[in-house]
Amino acid sequence: MLKGDLVKLKPKYVQISSGGPLIAILNLKDCEENDIHRGDRIQLSYGSKSVVAIVDTTIDDSFIAKGEIGLTYELSKKIKSKQKINVELVEKPYSLKYIKEKLDGKELNKKEIYAIIKDIVDNKLSEVEVAYFAAAGYVNHFTFEETVALTEAMVNTGSILKLKSKIVVDKHCIGGVAGNRTTMVIVPILASLGLIIPKTSSRSITSPAGTADTMEVLAKVDLDLKGVKRVVEKTNGCIVWGGALSLAPADDVIIRVEHPLGIDAVGQMIASVLAKKKSVSSTHVLIDIPYGKGSKVPDLRQAKKLAKLFVDVGTKIGLKIKVVFTNGKEPIGNGIGPALEARDVLYVLMNHEKQPLDLREKALMLAGQIIELATRRKNGYALAKKALDSGLAYQKMVEIIKAQGKRAITPDEISLSRYHFDIKASKSGRLTYLNNRLISELALVAGAPKDKQAGLYLFKHTKQKIVKGEPLFRIYAENPRKLSFAKEFYERNKKHFAEIK
Amino acid sequence: MLKGDLVKLKPKYVQISSGGPLIAILNLKDCEENDIHRGDRIQLSYGSKSVVAIVDTTIDDSFIAKGEIGLTYELSKKIKSKQKINVELVEKPYSLKYIKEKLDGKELNKKEIYAIIKDIVDNKLSEVEVAYFAAAGYVNHFTFEETVALTEAMVNTGSILKLKSKIVVDKHCIGGVAGNRTTMVIVPILASLGLIIPKTSSRSITSPAGTADTMEVLAKVDLDLKGVKRVVEKTNGCIVWGGALSLAPADDVIIRVEHPLGIDAVGQMIASVLAKKKSVSSTHVLIDIPYGKGSKVPDLRQAKKLAKLFVDVGTKIGLKIKVVFTNGKEPIGNGIGPALEARDVLYVLMNHEKQPLDLREKALMLAGQIIELATRRKNGYALAKKALDSGLAYQKMVEIIKAQGKRAITPDEISLSRYHFDIKASKSGRLTYLNNRLISELALVAGAPKDKQAGLYLFKHTKQKIVKGEPLFRIYAENPRKLSFAKEFYERNKKHFAEIK
Repeated sequence: MLKGDLVKLKPKYVQISSGGPLIAILNLKDCEENDIHRGDRIQLSYGSKSVVAIVDTTIDDSFIAKGEIGLTYELSKKIKSKQKINVELVEKPYSLKYIKEKLDGKELNKKEIYAIIKDIVDNKLSEVEVAYFAAAGYVNHFTFEETVALTEAMVNTGSILKLKSKIVVDKHCIGGVAGNRTTMVIVPILASLGLIIPKTSSRSITSPAGTADTMEVLAKVDLDLKGVKRVVEKTNGCIVWGGALSLAPADDVIIRVEHPLGIDAVGQMIASVLAKKKSVSSTHVLIDIPYGKGSKVPDLRQAKKLAKLFVDVGTKIGLKIKVVFTNGKEPIGNGIGPALEARDVLYVLMNHEKQPLDLREKALMLAGQIIELATRRKNGYALAKKALDSGLAYQKMVEIIKAQGKRAITPDEISLSRYHFDIKASKSGRLTYLNNRLISELALVAGAPKDKQAGLYLFKHTKQKIVKGEPLFRIYAENPRKLSFAKEFYERNKKHFAEIK
Repeated sequence: MLKGDLVKLKPKYVQISSGGPLIAILNLKDCEENDIHRGDRIQLSYGSKSVVAIVDTTIDDSFIAKGEIGLTYELSKKIKSKQKINVELVEKPYSLKYIKEKLDGKELNKKEIYAIIKDIVDNKLSEVEVAYFAAAGYVNHFTFEETVALTEAMVNTGSILKLKSKIVVDKHCIGGVAGNRTTMVIVPILASLGLIIPKTSSRSITSPAGTADTMEVLAKVDLDLKGVKRVVEKTNGCIVWGGALSLAPADDVIIRVEHPLGIDAVGQMIASVLAKKKSVSSTHVLIDIPYGKGSKVPDLRQAKKLAKLFVDVGTKIGLKIKVVFTNGKEPIGNGIGPALEARDVLYVLMNHEKQPLDLREKALMLAGQIIELATRRKNGYALAKKALDSGLAYQKMVEIIKAQGKRAITPDEISLSRYHFDIKASKSGRLTYLNNRLISELALVAGAPKDKQAGLYLFKHTKQKIVKGEPLFRIYAENPRKLSFAKEFYERNKKHFAEIK
């Protein structure tokens, strides 16, 4: 097939999933006749719809016959037709040239960055090609102007949640701290005070729980854009998974491709966070940067560097940004893992005697900061505390949960796994250190976040006294097998978990 | 499935081809039960055989039922069993850490490079992960020691062609010159003089013909290692496609992944060339570096820099290397495209009146250099000329063609497409310039190398006189459609094709 030529093929829906990329499967004879090769990009269209896919081929006719085209799972969500569809070869995208230039160290302009991001969203770049873009940004860094362009391009190639309010608040934590489920306390506090906070969160990729995983214990989180709008208009806030909303979707592709190597170009990370905020019409955004040994940012100097970038890029795209630097050296809250963290959140919102006070205090501080940023009042902390202590925040959480499709439950209705094991103090003294990273890894080995009831419960925090033989923390796992794996993991690393002096 | 666990699945051979990566398709229920995710690496084994594959999943049971595992085309070539096979999750390969370190600018040691190359060959790295390695080498460059380690690792993770002779000669041209099919003249000359030259070549990726494509017009080229050995032991030489031989196979994967962006890290290119030579037991290797406007290497300074690397790395791995710098500014020979180039080669070998003298002279010069490098004689050119003029080289070519499974044909038996069109001189004068790159692109548009009979025939070379209206070159295409596309391409670019003064 010479570029621009059309061939008509009959769709066959094959339930194979690639995990992301849109793949079409063609019979080798059709490929040969039409000069199509494996890995080529083709455009499929019928009526006014069209989508670009990457070609795989079948060697014989047993699976996809000549004249047919196999639409894999992800692709079948984009194109639904019983009629023959038009298939046409697509030119190599021009944005490849810009990716190569970035690899060569050139600074890209706004138009070039937009072209790359647009082609990512339109599926015109393969995962390998997106990986080169991620590598280029990682090794050669994105300049300030490039980061701004990247943010704007991500916003402009995705969906936008349009809200009536002139002030829309939001928060983001750059992560790396076990537990730390402040969002689920902050959103109802602020919403109860009349602030609009359409909070979208991610599911965990490498940690024992993301906010979306934890909220899912209490409510539906995979709402679509219309659903989110409805919940926010009704309750002022929401706590949903961002993944189904097509907000800055280029970002999701880049993150997927960055995952195997765990790379995260700073400019890409800033753009990623701010694009998601801008896409839900946020105007005032608080960024929480935990720092210190064991967290993502090792020291205050690095934290301040990152903060400056957030503020500069955010300001440039019309957001009011405030950054707070918090203690990233130890877990926040007692529970680690979706169910255990959800329980902590409810305890705090209910002012329950079992509430973890560190989680309560951090959430109040952050909520107070957001109130002051958005309203210019000076007594943010006091207002947040009043909302919490009065029970208004809890009541708002019940409303939000209901709007997100579930009835509210009490913390003690959250079931935890019956397979658990207590790790006990090997000596008496004062707990001076808990290893954030190992705590998270242990919860992962125990099965979190996939097993929602798995994880850890911390009986003690640093600075507290402990007596030899007293339980330090409890491991929950879905089955005896995983529990023994977790115990083994603990045994192998036990020297580094905690310090008692 | 916790790492190390086994599950037994029934193989189902599905004729889907991924174009390279080994993909296994699992039913989603098996995945969920065993904690396997799309993109995970699994090891498949039965008896003493095992292979690593990447997981795709099916959403329903219609294609791959629970308890089954779909083996795609590439994978089915590695594992053949009617019995259930063992499937086990494989840990994230350690070499990912080294790839990240190289991206971070660290120099890798021998062991780390070996680990990466071994994991590439064992299919433990996905294409995205290999792309990060290619990007790291491209942006951060490979040091001399890394290049040596890369070369050795590529050799040691592939097959080796073992030959009895203590002296084995070889040649390589870094490419970028249209026509230039010297290899097919040089091999029979040297083989007729008793030198051993097991020449493996690539098929074209971006040019109108590779040596393997051209030789395929005359003989079988997709021999296996045993076949190559047999041909070389019988005739002293061969001209085969390297792709089926598993010589330095890591290189093939890296090149496939580099292709979309057209990147080519210098260290990787040097390692690639020298590893292929070392793998066929070569001892004396001539490297041809064409340079000048329109070729890959722009000037003599760059050519010399590259030459030093070839010599240094080659010497370190025990090869005797000689580099020649040749004119890369214009096409060599009259034909461009597999059939047209094969005809030129036969004309030269037969000392036919239609032979292109530039091809003859360049081949004689290169053959002479190899003779002098390998035998320490001083009259290499004269010996090569004698072999050619005496008809011994042609006779040797007939032998090689026969050993490679075909009967020899005369140049005029090579059929060319009946669809052709002559481009004529727009004025009279002396031809001072022919654009190498555009000549190649035009041949590609006309259908070469896929259409073996397509391409260009040059009636004139630079420095020759031409009269207005005389044909400058002829375009051959497989069908009228492609011919008209080629004409259009010429019309669009005609100002830049040639200069007549």
